[in-house]
Amino acid sequence: MAKKVLKFGGTSVGTIERILHVASIIKRETDAGNKIIAVVSAMSGKTNELLKQSKSISNNFSKRELDVLLSSGEQVTCSLLAGALVEQGINAKSWLNWQIPILTEGENFNARIINMNTSKIDEFLSIKGVAIIPGFQGVSKIGDVTTIGRGGSDATAVAIAKLFGADTCEIYTDVDGVYSTDPNKIPLAKKIDKISYDEMLELSSLGAKVMQSSAVQTAMMYDIPLEVKSTFTNRHGTKIFNQESIDYTKSVTGVAYSKDDAKVTLIGVEDRPGVAANIFEPLSKNQINVDMVIQNISSDHKTTDVTFTIKRDDLSKTLEIIKNNNMINYNELTHNDKVSKISIVGAGMVSTPGITYKMFKGLAEEKINILAISTSEIKLSVIISEDDTLKAVKKLHSIFDLD
Amino acid sequence: MAKKVLKFGGTSVGTIERILHVASIIKRETDAGNKIIAVVSAMSGKTNELLKQSKSISNNFSKRELDVLLSSGEQVTCSLLAGALVEQGINAKSWLNWQIPILTEGENFNARIINMNTSKIDEFLSIKGVAIIPGFQGVSKIGDVTTIGRGGSDATAVAIAKLFGADTCEIYTDVDGVYSTDPNKIPLAKKIDKISYDEMLELSSLGAKVMQSSAVQTAMMYDIPLEVKSTFTNRHGTKIFNQESIDYTKSVTGVAYSKDDAKVTLIGVEDRPGVAANIFEPLSKNQINVDMVIQNISSDHKTTDVTFTIKRDDLSKTLEIIKNNNMINYNELTHNDKVSKISIVGAGMVSTPGITYKMFKGLAEEKINILAISTSEIKLSVIISEDDTLKAVKKLHSIFDLD
Repeated sequence: MAKKVLKFGGTSVGTIERILHVASIIKRETDAGNKIIAVVSAMSGKTNELLKQSKSISNNFSKRELDVLLSSGEQVTCSLLAGALVEQGINAKSWLNWQIPILTEGENFNARIINMNTSKIDEFLSIKGVAIIPGFQGVSKIGDVTTIGRGGSDATAVAIAKLFGADTCEIYTDVDGVYSTDPNKIPLAKKIDKISYDEMLELSSLGAKVMQSSAVQTAMMYDIPLEVKSTFTNRHGTKIFNQESIDYTKSVTGVAYSKDDAKVTLIGVEDRPGVAANIFEPLSKNQINVDMVIQNISSDHKTTDVTFTIKRDDLSKTLEIIKNNNMINYNELTHNDKVSKISIVGAGMVSTPGITYKMFKGLAEEKINILAISTSEIKLSVIISEDDTLKAVKKLHSIFDLD
Repeated sequence: MAKKVLKFGGTSVGTIERILHVASIIKRETDAGNKIIAVVSAMSGKTNELLKQSKSISNNFSKRELDVLLSSGEQVTCSLLAGALVEQGINAKSWLNWQIPILTEGENFNARIINMNTSKIDEFLSIKGVAIIPGFQGVSKIGDVTTIGRGGSDATAVAIAKLFGADTCEIYTDVDGVYSTDPNKIPLAKKIDKISYDEMLELSSLGAKVMQSSAVQTAMMYDIPLEVKSTFTNRHGTKIFNQESIDYTKSVTGVAYSKDDAKVTLIGVEDRPGVAANIFEPLSKNQINVDMVIQNISSDHKTTDVTFTIKRDDLSKTLEIIKNNNMINYNELTHNDKVSKISIVGAGMVSTPGITYKMFKGLAEEKINILAISTSEIKLSVIISEDDTLKAVKKLHSIFDLD
């Protein structure tokens, strides 16, 4: 008998039929004697529909009222799912953000869960009650409705798992786990059975959008075992836990890629302390998210070349900011708006020699030019021409024995 | 400067455009210096859509969860309207059922408002805040969401007007007031400028479905002046207040009719004490709503004839219950399922002689046969053949100078 948090995303509860199916998953769990808290998203499309309504009133719609508006989506799912379970003879109840309450701090539309009252729901679980809780939302200290950012239902599920001391937190979604690379593009992609929090974070931040990164971070911090699995098949998914608990047989776990990137290079930057800060501070102030940064000593040993990548949408704004920046001197500003980032990720990489060489050799065999390189403990990323993306991913997936 | 409760029904907030229009009505009121509490319904069609979703799960959907589900409808309207007002520079806020809170008693789906906390909202009104409150819902003593029955937004508005000591309660709807008879069927129908609570109750219970009856009753009990007016025209509507405040120039205020009625007659019922109770108790226990009841002494002075009307849908069940009733003796059971009820309503009727005669004479001139008659202080109803309905309404509307 375990205490489990089950989270069901928007596509998992997207229709009445799917809600009934989710009820049957929960019934299977309670029949097995488990204590269940279910966290649900709004039915797929609902949040966008509500956002669209708010935008048709104002592009600058009151954030306080937007949270009241959006939170109705999960409320609807909660009541429909609880009703479907009651119909099956299960003692289920919806618990809304204010009924628990789920306490948040921070501004509307971007709050963080800081606490929740567990006593009432624990009591309810002890009499075989199934608690259905809306994801993505909470209540502020002054009693306003808040939401915690898109994808926030994952964060709600992990926070609940932590505060209720759940044995596990299962993320039901429309894919059956985390893959070694994008299965829609690379048919040889394989489902990963076990993965560490770190690897999951690198993969998800690199475009394998299975779970919200901040939720994985919270799970890592409190050591809450996660499992990502499909609502629509009754199979094991991907288990996500501590690196130490994983027995690595492969050095590389997966290959991720992100498109829509752009690369900017400043050639011949005057090399003195503080110059990097002078370049990036105005970008940060303009909400431009800089991804990779590479700095080399220039050939003349007096200047340096600085290369960085950003989202392609931010390119023209970035170039404008740099041109208007009086704090920096450089010889030339170049950019390439047709690049993508390819990364190999693996907790076993650090202990396996020759990974870097193997990657570069593989790309060279395919005649793919590397425009920039960046490395971390468990990740090795290269920037290449966008046209080469799939060719590179296939090659790396193959040479690291992931096929 | 007045404190006003403005209630906007489902059609008044049925689209984003209409919500923006409602915001402009509220702005006009605040520009005039009035303190405004707005009570809103769900966007038209929304409640039916949610009900349909619940029915696709179960025809016996959990009432607790149904209330959670349905209450989301008004929540959405509240946030959209508050956001639209904020966009116009008005300090508006949605206040949800639990944020006020609106305390109710009674079972889910059929609760009654018993109290609400006024301090926070009064404070907000005092700093020129506009409070937007969801109609139709509240919170129970144990903290569950409740709803107060269909049309309950009128009841919410009147309860708020009472508890906040509002000067007036304006019901914005899709008609521009209360008419002397159904304007869709009788083109000569006229809008009534002023009407008493009693007359309004008689008219609305007789099919002029402009306002929910129980809301009018509450307004009458606490002497809260009402005005029913159109959201879509900027004209005076119908004011509803105390009979004493109205200067009657006409004896009859309006002609109402209801269709879908059926008439049942028991001929030769044994005339002894308690016989009426014996007839009607089993009907009441089976949720059959008996409308008019007429009892005459029979020609033989030992038995009596009892006639009553019910909704046509209840006819077969009613006949079955009477046939199986061993507590009553009678000679014959007859029924007519093609009847309608025509009523003239007017607070001035009681002081005007000859109204009854005038009505019967008018119907006789049209060769309309009267099947049953019932009278009250401010109403005179007759049962006639359904085919004669419109002819009768037109004639009465004309002879009582309402055209």
